[in-house]
Amino acid sequence: MYNYKLTVQYDGSRYKGWQRLGNGENTIQDKIEQVLSKMLGQEIEIVGSSRTDAGVHALGQIANFKTDQLLEPQEVKAYLNHYLPEDISIIEVTMVNENFHARYLCKDKTYLYKIWNKEYSHPFFRKYSMHVKGILDIEKMKAASRHFIGKHDFTAFSNAKSKKKSTIREIYNIDIKEEEGFIELRIRGDGFLYNMVRWMVGALIEVGLGKKESSVIALTMDAKERGKAGDLAEPGGLFLEKVTY
Amino acid sequence: MYNYKLTVQYDGSRYKGWQRLGNGENTIQDKIEQVLSKMLGQEIEIVGSSRTDAGVHALGQIANFKTDQLLEPQEVKAYLNHYLPEDISIIEVTMVNENFHARYLCKDKTYLYKIWNKEYSHPFFRKYSMHVKGILDIEKMKAASRHFIGKHDFTAFSNAKSKKKSTIREIYNIDIKEEEGFIELRIRGDGFLYNMVRWMVGALIEVGLGKKESSVIALTMDAKERGKAGDLAEPGGLFLEKVTY
Repeated sequence: MYNYKLTVQYDGSRYKGWQRLGNGENTIQDKIEQVLSKMLGQEIEIVGSSRTDAGVHALGQIANFKTDQLLEPQEVKAYLNHYLPEDISIIEVTMVNENFHARYLCKDKTYLYKIWNKEYSHPFFRKYSMHVKGILDIEKMKAASRHFIGKHDFTAFSNAKSKKKSTIREIYNIDIKEEEGFIELRIRGDGFLYNMVRWMVGALIEVGLGKKESSVIALTMDAKERGKAGDLAEPGGLFLEKVTY
Repeated sequence: MYNYKLTVQYDGSRYKGWQRLGNGENTIQDKIEQVLSKMLGQEIEIVGSSRTDAGVHALGQIANFKTDQLLEPQEVKAYLNHYLPEDISIIEVTMVNENFHARYLCKDKTYLYKIWNKEYSHPFFRKYSMHVKGILDIEKMKAASRHFIGKHDFTAFSNAKSKKKSTIREIYNIDIKEEEGFIELRIRGDGFLYNMVRWMVGALIEVGLGKKESSVIALTMDAKERGKAGDLAEPGGLFLEKVTY
């Protein structure tokens, strides 16, 4: 079997997320599988590194698929980009070792969350950022973000449904900076629960607005009470930026 | 009478251009006038520096309006941004001299045209750039752009309908640079005919692709034959960037 790795960018605005839902709903995985299956004349299944939610974007989603057909990576890339809608782009295709698995072998992931922090909306980034009108205190946000660093039980910061799976995740780094009216948060960790980044950002926004103390994060984590530290941040500001293997 | 100057940003994708059409069609001027008229309780007419076409964007459109009411500029700004749709933003409101006129007194304008020059589409800029798949030779485009500099009859590079008005315009400067996969063209001149920037960019694309010689620009200008040097570039790549008084 040959194994191919895809690097995918997408505007998630009009999709029900990455993951195939099996009921014909509009997902990014569906779109890519349909084009690949047509190209290869056989049913192709792809594995993505992350199940991004409805409305969430990607700058560097990683996926892989296997087939017994030997393909020229450049041809796969050209075919996909020709037939995929304009809001999904394949920016790289490479042939990889047969053992490569986009989900299981992933070492860490970086999510980018963009906040537009002016009183007026940003006409060109209104779907690619969350608009927060109140002035955010970036230093307070940085201080509060330290509570997330390390290994924690993130039950309070997720909508994870399964009770069997571990809710422990390790956050390696959170970088927060201001950039021409935007506040960009980059969160790197070994993995993320369902909605986890959006709950984390929602809490940091509350602290940045001065509505909550920084300590609310540790308290919420200990109490495992979802929503106590803030609201779920909007999906449109979130981008899966980088996946490392 | 008090005179107020507005600096406006907009995503033109879903509008029929800047200019009020008088038949209830969706234009940016209409939207702003409706909100201002509601705020002031009297019919307000605004004057824009440029009549941007359907689908064309603005980073710094300038407009002004007069009223006998003394207003706090910050309040006007806040009211407009509150009631305008998210794809139109008022980034500045100032009180100006009674003689200020956004169209008549304008000294020069700069338009930005963004080309996305990769084989795959850009998911986030697909409405804010023109996608040209063939590799553009930026040096050829720069050389060809020199034919536009100075005072010329731009009949061949416009859809201007009036036969009475002058078709002479002066182009002061054209700057072309590459920026992370984009080719950005900045064109500064004393004024522009209907569709003029888009016809100019269309010609430069043909030269950049190697389909036309640089000399085609001067020949087309002399022959006054529209469309001879290339096609009309798409509206989505065009931004009114700056207006100087």
